[in-house]
Amino acid sequence: MSLLFERPFSDKADQEEGSSFAPKFGANDLITAVVTAASDGEPLMVAHMNEEALKLTLDTGVAHFYSRSRKALWKKGETSGNTLSVRQILVDCDQDCLWLKVDVADEGPACHTGRRSCFYRQVETDNGAVRLTFRAD
Amino acid sequence: MSLLFERPFSDKADQEEGSSFAPKFGANDLITAVVTAASDGEPLMVAHMNEEALKLTLDTGVAHFYSRSRKALWKKGETSGNTLSVRQILVDCDQDCLWLKVDVADEGPACHTGRRSCFYRQVETDNGAVRLTFRAD
Repeated sequence: MSLLFERPFSDKADQEEGSSFAPKFGANDLITAVVTAASDGEPLMVAHMNEEALKLTLDTGVAHFYSRSRKALWKKGETSGNTLSVRQILVDCDQDCLWLKVDVADEGPACHTGRRSCFYRQVETDNGAVRLTFRAD
Repeated sequence: MSLLFERPFSDKADQEEGSSFAPKFGANDLITAVVTAASDGEPLMVAHMNEEALKLTLDTGVAHFYSRSRKALWKKGETSGNTLSVRQILVDCDQDCLWLKVDVADEGPACHTGRRSCFYRQVETDNGAVRLTFRAD
């Protein structure tokens, strides 16, 4: 696959203040992709993309990731039908993280457990003990 | 440092549906931590925590991370004053990612560039070319 993105940066100012997109793929050639709902900002999931997944996401407008467990390209929702239509992609200052604002098909769940979000539990501390509780909201 | 968290899980149901917090530290013993503003859900930054940083965050209520570039514990805002008060910590289904909802001290910037958020640029495509533009919002 030909390289879609420019790299490397000439300097830090170019990286942080320029218009060149040169995502920094890290360990295992993956970049972290945070996914929130375009409608209300709800945290939905966090996954990873390799260059192919990112290119497909940009080309099709539908989120693709790389499954670390299956070691394969992963079109989110291909089986469940809960595909993610990408409304906006943001990149952070040092271009090592992406942020996708999406609409889930049929407003379905993003989590494989059937919940809207993968982040359905909160971490609580009580006298030094740490436990999880299910979110009320 | 003694282990703060329970591990490993007895099974997947325990991991996904239980109350035991057993964060899965991955490559380099780090876990990804997504940070949004508690007030309005604005994406602020994405960083990483080692076990010490997570323990300090839980103990103090102030976000601590591990700086991969400096290879050191990093109390966010220690120099700038823009510390992050943690209002809520969420964990995802397979417990390999944390989500912090925070208040930034004095409503200051979370990004080292002086911006509120590290995600100040969006990725745009135009006839196969990919470039970054600065967000209007």
